[in-house]
Amino acid sequence: MAVRYELIKECKDTGARVGKLHTPHGVIETPIFMPVGTQATVKSLTPEDVKRTGAQIILSNTYHLYIRPGTRVMEKAGGLHKFMNWDKPILTDSGGYQVFSLGDLRQIKEEGVTFRSHLDGSKHFIGPEEAMYIQNVLGSDIMMAFDECAPYPAEYDYTKKSMERTLRWAKRCKDAHKNTDKQALFGIVQGGMYQDLREISAKETVAMDFPGYAIGGLSVGEPKPLMYEVLDYTLPHLPREKARYLMGVGSIDALFEGVERGVDMFDCVLQTRIARNGTAMTSTGKVVIKNAKYEEDFSPLDAECDCYCCQNFSKAYLRHLIKANEILGLRLLSEHNLRFTLKTMENIRKAIMEDSFVEYKKEFFKKYIY
Amino acid sequence: MAVRYELIKECKDTGARVGKLHTPHGVIETPIFMPVGTQATVKSLTPEDVKRTGAQIILSNTYHLYIRPGTRVMEKAGGLHKFMNWDKPILTDSGGYQVFSLGDLRQIKEEGVTFRSHLDGSKHFIGPEEAMYIQNVLGSDIMMAFDECAPYPAEYDYTKKSMERTLRWAKRCKDAHKNTDKQALFGIVQGGMYQDLREISAKETVAMDFPGYAIGGLSVGEPKPLMYEVLDYTLPHLPREKARYLMGVGSIDALFEGVERGVDMFDCVLQTRIARNGTAMTSTGKVVIKNAKYEEDFSPLDAECDCYCCQNFSKAYLRHLIKANEILGLRLLSEHNLRFTLKTMENIRKAIMEDSFVEYKKEFFKKYIY
Repeated sequence: MAVRYELIKECKDTGARVGKLHTPHGVIETPIFMPVGTQATVKSLTPEDVKRTGAQIILSNTYHLYIRPGTRVMEKAGGLHKFMNWDKPILTDSGGYQVFSLGDLRQIKEEGVTFRSHLDGSKHFIGPEEAMYIQNVLGSDIMMAFDECAPYPAEYDYTKKSMERTLRWAKRCKDAHKNTDKQALFGIVQGGMYQDLREISAKETVAMDFPGYAIGGLSVGEPKPLMYEVLDYTLPHLPREKARYLMGVGSIDALFEGVERGVDMFDCVLQTRIARNGTAMTSTGKVVIKNAKYEEDFSPLDAECDCYCCQNFSKAYLRHLIKANEILGLRLLSEHNLRFTLKTMENIRKAIMEDSFVEYKKEFFKKYIY
Repeated sequence: MAVRYELIKECKDTGARVGKLHTPHGVIETPIFMPVGTQATVKSLTPEDVKRTGAQIILSNTYHLYIRPGTRVMEKAGGLHKFMNWDKPILTDSGGYQVFSLGDLRQIKEEGVTFRSHLDGSKHFIGPEEAMYIQNVLGSDIMMAFDECAPYPAEYDYTKKSMERTLRWAKRCKDAHKNTDKQALFGIVQGGMYQDLREISAKETVAMDFPGYAIGGLSVGEPKPLMYEVLDYTLPHLPREKARYLMGVGSIDALFEGVERGVDMFDCVLQTRIARNGTAMTSTGKVVIKNAKYEEDFSPLDAECDCYCCQNFSKAYLRHLIKANEILGLRLLSEHNLRFTLKTMENIRKAIMEDSFVEYKKEFFKKYIY
């Protein structure tokens, strides 16, 4: 089996747990946050930069790589690891979420999805078999099943039909996946914000016996308490001995809440996206670096942070760079935000190991204002 | 004296020479190319990135830093080195060239130049005394005198008056410079494309006894042969025992021609500017990475190059990054272009030391097509 989850320690007070995910490209300590490298690059950073943030695995997007540079180039490159020179684990999504996000440009049928490229309008088709084929070419350590992520809000009937189709697609993905010894295929639980649908989806997906399970269809616009409620009734249906991945979630508070409920893996573009807008995540909350109060502030972004940015540059300099539209500014903030998040995950793992997760969370949010 | 030029070796066939420029922030081997960090950052690169290209000194622009973040912030930061975390030598221009480039936004008088900020239209004045004050605050190792760079083409009379004013301004700069033990002020020879004016300017500037001399007013649109002609009749008037700096020049062929005529220092935005457009400088000439022929070319940009980009990434990947507008693409090309240029300067110094500069130049341009 390509990927194996090893449970190391469970929190005595909550669902939080520490584990190890063994993959062909190395061992990942969980709970973990995965930086996103949509187009075969974590925006503005080299693989070395990404590694020094503490990243153990990154996520890349199948739809984007399928559209550009295309499956043929990726095949000739010898897969995504070689192409982008990243030798640690990679998780790829299935392209489903991205394709559904195209809105009017796509049409969903039982067979799969016909869509037009966001780049040149050319017509394409991706179904479960195509999603497996592309991800087999990419050679990611963890592949995701081709699913439909229902929008929020969505009617019960639509969500039910969509969830049921996602189950049928999961089966087809399993059958089409060609490289099971080197790539693990994770199933995805859907069902929107409806408890019975989530339970059916979880049970049926688990019945197909995947090496790991994701919870999809969250962080799609619903209020956070609703997301946590869905996690509360969904996670108990996922097996204790497999990794659990909450897709597209990465705000600091949601990371804590997810971990507390038993989530092992997270990904989000938030860290690098807000960096490009000049916003930093720090131990006291968000810092909008363009703010005039930082003009003559020669202290680091976060006095507690061990990242390259905080060790070498001041808020005044970062403010100057961002105001002057200098790439170095968003690059330094990107690296910082990823390091801040991954360091927080390190602290979370440590706290769980030391039976102090609840206390750590409390302490953290005494300082962190959001 | 803040800066001392040490002549190490003169080429027996040409004016080329190897030297050492001793500065408060370390020794620079010449001939040298200086990467440009206009706004207190070499675009897209960290100080560590810049160092690994082989850079020994960078140039920064007084006008830009005066406008943003401003002299007060730079003073409170403790100078430019600290602000941008660069511990090697820095040369700053005087702001003159940038201010004259503002066109209709500026007005030149004997006292100095009144101009409007390119950012917010606010009114400012910089004369020789202000240029010295700002550069004293910046704390650059090498400061440049406040001069007027005449446009090309320019009438004889205009060029003469402008050159004479530049001489008067040079004297005022010398008198206003406050920090002579830690910062060296270089004089600038002007005179456009007129031999007698260049000779007068050179002699009068040298008579003021600066620790180094620049040739300004070249690479302003004139044909390259004309530039080389000006160098031919100007350089003999500059003292052998002082460093000679050709401002704003950095195309590979012009670097060789300048060195051959006795130039020690160069700067140019070309390397990083064309990188941002997806163009690489290689041992066989320019490579436009978006070209379709590189789509499945998994070889490095330049097989002979030892830079981080060439050691880790393929042309196919770089093409993908540039086509996808990914910052990492222009960042890697920026680092490569600087490394290529600085490595070429290393080779030039080595060739001069081994009495083989003429042969090296010949060999180089057998392969390098421009």
